[in-house]
Amino acid sequence: MLRKSLLLALVTLPVLAAPVFADALADVDPFIGTGGDGHTFPGATLPFGMVQLSPDTDMPNFHHAYGWAAGYRYSDHSILGFSHTHFSGSGHSDLGDVLLMPMSGELHLDPGAKDQPSSGYRSRFSHQSERASPGYYAVTLDDNQVKVELTAGKRVGWHRYTFAEGAEARVLLDLRPSIYDYDGKVLWSSLRLRPDGVLTGMRQTRGWAPGRQLFFAMRFSKPLKGHQLLNREQNVSYRGFKGPGHNPGDVAAISGRALEAALDFGPLNSPLLVKVAISSVSEQGALDNLSKEASGWDFDGAKTAAQAQWQKALGAIDIKAPAPIRRSFYTALYHALIAPNLASDADGRYRGPDQEVHQAKGFDFYSTWSLWDVYRAQQPLLTILEPKRMGELVSSLVAAQQSSPFGILPVWSYQGQETWCMIGYHALPVIADAYLKGITGFDSAAALKAMVASADYGPYGDLSDYITLGYVPIDKEPEAASKTLEYAFDDWTLARMASAMGKDALAKRFFKRAGNWQNVFDRQTGFARARLSNGDYRTPFDPAAVGYGSDYTEGNAWQYSWYVPQDIAGLINAMGGQSAFVNKLDAVFDTKVDPKTFAHVEDISGLIGYYAHGNEPSHHMAYLYDYAGAPWKTQERLTTIMNSQYHDGPTGLAGNDDLGQMSAWYLFTAMGFYPVAPGSNQYVLGRPFVEEASIRLPGGKRFVVKAEHLDDAHPYVGKVLLNGKALATSYITHQDLVAGGTLTFVMQQSPNKNWATGPASRPYSLSR
Amino acid sequence: MLRKSLLLALVTLPVLAAPVFADALADVDPFIGTGGDGHTFPGATLPFGMVQLSPDTDMPNFHHAYGWAAGYRYSDHSILGFSHTHFSGSGHSDLGDVLLMPMSGELHLDPGAKDQPSSGYRSRFSHQSERASPGYYAVTLDDNQVKVELTAGKRVGWHRYTFAEGAEARVLLDLRPSIYDYDGKVLWSSLRLRPDGVLTGMRQTRGWAPGRQLFFAMRFSKPLKGHQLLNREQNVSYRGFKGPGHNPGDVAAISGRALEAALDFGPLNSPLLVKVAISSVSEQGALDNLSKEASGWDFDGAKTAAQAQWQKALGAIDIKAPAPIRRSFYTALYHALIAPNLASDADGRYRGPDQEVHQAKGFDFYSTWSLWDVYRAQQPLLTILEPKRMGELVSSLVAAQQSSPFGILPVWSYQGQETWCMIGYHALPVIADAYLKGITGFDSAAALKAMVASADYGPYGDLSDYITLGYVPIDKEPEAASKTLEYAFDDWTLARMASAMGKDALAKRFFKRAGNWQNVFDRQTGFARARLSNGDYRTPFDPAAVGYGSDYTEGNAWQYSWYVPQDIAGLINAMGGQSAFVNKLDAVFDTKVDPKTFAHVEDISGLIGYYAHGNEPSHHMAYLYDYAGAPWKTQERLTTIMNSQYHDGPTGLAGNDDLGQMSAWYLFTAMGFYPVAPGSNQYVLGRPFVEEASIRLPGGKRFVVKAEHLDDAHPYVGKVLLNGKALATSYITHQDLVAGGTLTFVMQQSPNKNWATGPASRPYSLSR
Repeated sequence: MLRKSLLLALVTLPVLAAPVFADALADVDPFIGTGGDGHTFPGATLPFGMVQLSPDTDMPNFHHAYGWAAGYRYSDHSILGFSHTHFSGSGHSDLGDVLLMPMSGELHLDPGAKDQPSSGYRSRFSHQSERASPGYYAVTLDDNQVKVELTAGKRVGWHRYTFAEGAEARVLLDLRPSIYDYDGKVLWSSLRLRPDGVLTGMRQTRGWAPGRQLFFAMRFSKPLKGHQLLNREQNVSYRGFKGPGHNPGDVAAISGRALEAALDFGPLNSPLLVKVAISSVSEQGALDNLSKEASGWDFDGAKTAAQAQWQKALGAIDIKAPAPIRRSFYTALYHALIAPNLASDADGRYRGPDQEVHQAKGFDFYSTWSLWDVYRAQQPLLTILEPKRMGELVSSLVAAQQSSPFGILPVWSYQGQETWCMIGYHALPVIADAYLKGITGFDSAAALKAMVASADYGPYGDLSDYITLGYVPIDKEPEAASKTLEYAFDDWTLARMASAMGKDALAKRFFKRAGNWQNVFDRQTGFARARLSNGDYRTPFDPAAVGYGSDYTEGNAWQYSWYVPQDIAGLINAMGGQSAFVNKLDAVFDTKVDPKTFAHVEDISGLIGYYAHGNEPSHHMAYLYDYAGAPWKTQERLTTIMNSQYHDGPTGLAGNDDLGQMSAWYLFTAMGFYPVAPGSNQYVLGRPFVEEASIRLPGGKRFVVKAEHLDDAHPYVGKVLLNGKALATSYITHQDLVAGGTLTFVMQQSPNKNWATGPASRPYSLSR
Repeated sequence: MLRKSLLLALVTLPVLAAPVFADALADVDPFIGTGGDGHTFPGATLPFGMVQLSPDTDMPNFHHAYGWAAGYRYSDHSILGFSHTHFSGSGHSDLGDVLLMPMSGELHLDPGAKDQPSSGYRSRFSHQSERASPGYYAVTLDDNQVKVELTAGKRVGWHRYTFAEGAEARVLLDLRPSIYDYDGKVLWSSLRLRPDGVLTGMRQTRGWAPGRQLFFAMRFSKPLKGHQLLNREQNVSYRGFKGPGHNPGDVAAISGRALEAALDFGPLNSPLLVKVAISSVSEQGALDNLSKEASGWDFDGAKTAAQAQWQKALGAIDIKAPAPIRRSFYTALYHALIAPNLASDADGRYRGPDQEVHQAKGFDFYSTWSLWDVYRAQQPLLTILEPKRMGELVSSLVAAQQSSPFGILPVWSYQGQETWCMIGYHALPVIADAYLKGITGFDSAAALKAMVASADYGPYGDLSDYITLGYVPIDKEPEAASKTLEYAFDDWTLARMASAMGKDALAKRFFKRAGNWQNVFDRQTGFARARLSNGDYRTPFDPAAVGYGSDYTEGNAWQYSWYVPQDIAGLINAMGGQSAFVNKLDAVFDTKVDPKTFAHVEDISGLIGYYAHGNEPSHHMAYLYDYAGAPWKTQERLTTIMNSQYHDGPTGLAGNDDLGQMSAWYLFTAMGFYPVAPGSNQYVLGRPFVEEASIRLPGGKRFVVKAEHLDDAHPYVGKVLLNGKALATSYITHQDLVAGGTLTFVMQQSPNKNWATGPASRPYSLSR
């Protein structure tokens, strides 16, 4: 349903400097995060869409690929092509499937050197010619003399190429390059030019998710004047027998490991449109997606429809804030609404983690689960903004578990395929948080069964020893301290859901496991540490040490020792009481740390002392002061973080956006609250950074956050009113939020050291 | 339906020396053709079954693999393992999927050297311990101390392993080796041990049919004591993240390119049974095939059922003949009833040439189309012996065309996948022959459409030039002379079918194309030769020259110039008349030819002069004397061929059995007639080699061939009676045959040079 009136408004409304409710779409800048290591992409996608059609400036060998995890880096000067799948902000990466490059005149079959773009099909461009907004991207390729515009449907990418007048219009499809590429990544691929001019194909790659298959179907708005289907692979021992066609131009279909299609359209007097549908299931699935989702040749209509969908999605929160903050906020909201991605075809079929094709019944199947990241804030955000979709997301997790060869929930998966990246079983907090917040539309009994199966699966991450010993022993499993901590939190969320479902024995067993954090918390040093099977802590111990194979995952003891969201009261006690806790937390932020300490670990960035905002283990830390009765310190730290770690330029993200987690942190924090412990139904209060935020809720209700006297001179919370009534606690509940109403922060110049300091006013923890 | 009475009879009836009707099953010796270059396999399969479960003695690199096209060579002394897919008698090859090897005691993960079998899992064996009959194979592995027995269902292979008492019983599954192997042939593979003990997996290979996927599901009769799932691949640039399981024994699923599963069952006090279902569709397809087709653990019952199926199939012809001829005959019949192979799952799904999954409706989908071979005699044989299945075969061809990326009928395909091996579009004679013989059960309009699409598809084998010029020019396409000849024959069969369907314009167009053989027949030299685009014959010309890239396919001018089955009268004329024709045909057989002439061409063998019985282009030649009014010469040549090219030992086939074509030639010839021109509905008479053959026909009818006075001293046909009435022609029609009745050959010592000499008595040709 297109909200046409709103859309028309968008065209005419200027972006105002004054903080008023304005058009969200115009405030999104998809380039934010495309510089530095934000790893976002500037191209076109729909909310949670299957296609992410975006320019790729390079696809280097995976040894050097970190900076090109989304295919595009703002600092590059040439474009390799436009491919249909990208992760938004991942650290590790893959994808870049079905790369198209239009060109005028001479045909180039290889990309050429980056420092000499004209040696191949790669083309120089300048940011001046680029335009990007949700669902739309445009650029002019200087060498190739083509204006490229992109938009997206759910499963279809749309290209509009405007060629130089009179020039030979060509499109090259190169199935060889991949994000995080390496020699041999393409296991197999095929191309088929059908009699009706539709080009279909597939490629199977051995990347992050090994053996992943992606199919596509591509239709052109102009008749083909000629084509070549090429297999560029060299040094093949055995090629078998040659199929029909003497010349690449006679060939209707090929398979191999280095395929290209060169497509000639001759001189054109109007733009060439290309529609590309993808599918994880089959070519037929891609063909069906194409015909069901993208009839006709109305690029502008497709763009309008895409932007209308974004308008609706971004309308979930209206804010009043100055323009730079609006840009950061709505871009964050945009980035938080990209993944998980639709992974089932128009007919509901999808490829599960067993590589088999399954039928989703009654829900769309979603994948792209960066769970270690998004369980913290991005998924909790969706319980508020996208409650219906959240039920489908949980159904998707459960469906994935049911077809997992291991019988467990996704860890880090995409297009249905598992990568085993990162640690923990964080589908549990996602599901428990959704269940406890009253999200429906999934089979809760099946979900609980899937959660238990995952938490009890011995071979995964040494759960067998964890279950026996109460901790993961470092002599058996790397990064054992962080694993124990995160397992214990995940266990707590399972216990909370089991308890709510009346499964008391199960709840009891997992509440007990939730206390396992204590088994790795060394009261002597005051840090969480890894232990050996014999019970000893591993030595030597350096709380600043960080590195692969250490006690922790992408972190050190200073960063990881705070990861007990389910029992901060217990942690305070373990750390020697409230004052010691606060002092130690201060030390995290205030210690002078040489950033070189972390230079060898890709994902640790955004440093404030040991606090690393660029990576997720730090994300809850600033809010922990609330638990120790020092909410003004939370407010101070948030001010520092918001001012130093985000801005509205390409380098505006301090680290990987991680499929919206960095952005979700920003959104919650800007609105004054944060889900420190998903599954608790509590939002811990910080301080707002927008004058007003109005959250759209089901049934026409709204939850409005207001910040009175908000400016740089008033960074502290004086008092908080919930629906006009003074709030004594430093948290609100999900029930408060979904009931609708108004949360008012009255800001002031100096800290209020009397508000929410007592035990009864602090957020929930296991011990209460 | 088990014919139990017959089966019981089998057990008690001795094989008699005297030529009486006896048990066909007992007369089959699956070892015939496993020596020399027959390329048959001795293992267990059902008639036209999906599974061919057979021992492999070696799987050498494809450069040296010709002799191991069926995995087994009788001259080898050790066995590599038992795999589930084999071609029966192919020249080029592939398969050998899902190789299992049982062993007692020490676990070996690699096969070891062929000259030192004990260095690996390979095991010595002796032929003394081998037993093979249709649907059953047994051998004792000397090194591995296991008695192995194999039987087969349609889609399921059954193994029974009897281990040494008290020994550790182990089974190794090695997904690495392949028939016609080379480094990198396995594109991708996976293994999954399910909680219920079923092992499933797949492998995708880049062999003869590139990108072929084969799935399997394997169930064991004893509980697993332990397992290891191993990925043996070395030097992988990128391995991604490790899945669950510290040790191979914890691992429930893996994927990669060099997978093995080592399965431990501990000491057993009874045999271990393994049931393995395969599928081209999916693991779920294999699981369903397994559960639907193979319940329980009754190996003997499965064997009995398999042999009952063979008993029924072999019961299609009863003969009276001496034991050696019975063995040759029934083994030939066995070999003629193995392929095409079932390729659809129990639920009717199959993978088409587009690699997509399709649903067969109302028929089983068959593949393994060695069409260049089998269109000559093996497929025509099935129109007589398996008329119902023949309808399904045609439906399968048409279904394959409908999902072909090229829109054409199979050329040489298996498991639904195309290889493009050999020349011509010989699905046309298969379909036309079936249609003209009244075979039903397929959509004849769709079939005709598929035939025209194939015959008019320009990019295939330079059909575009063939259509324009009336011949394939050798400067554009290799082996142009043989292609022109075979295309013209195929065209004639299309024309015949179109004519019978009342499509006169189409018939006219293709009858004209059927005359194209004349465009490559050089009356000056008297040979069919390749021409250039400019119309000149290519020079220099040597009618004895043979080799890849020559004017002919696996042959020379002496062999190929006779390939005008649709117009032998025209050929006689072109060769200068009846006498010149006969003299030249005599020269083919009588010229003294050094076999070394053909040593560099793998498939040419079985030489009698230039006549090469080991390869198909010669197969109709001996019958051509009939067309020139000299049937006694046909009889003489057949006597020579039958006595020199077939015997009842392992080297009893003079060349590749080619999926039953060599065997079908034997069967027809032994019964006294041969389908020289499929699509003509005529069987050209030779001379019988069995005293009596009784062919089972639908509706309880029989067509009986009798040979009176048959012995070595009476090699000539004196007269022929059809249903007691003297036959003046040297052919009978299919109508004569299917009507039922008796064809009596009265044999005599000397040639009858008066019978069937006149033009009116000769077989059909285009000019009549």
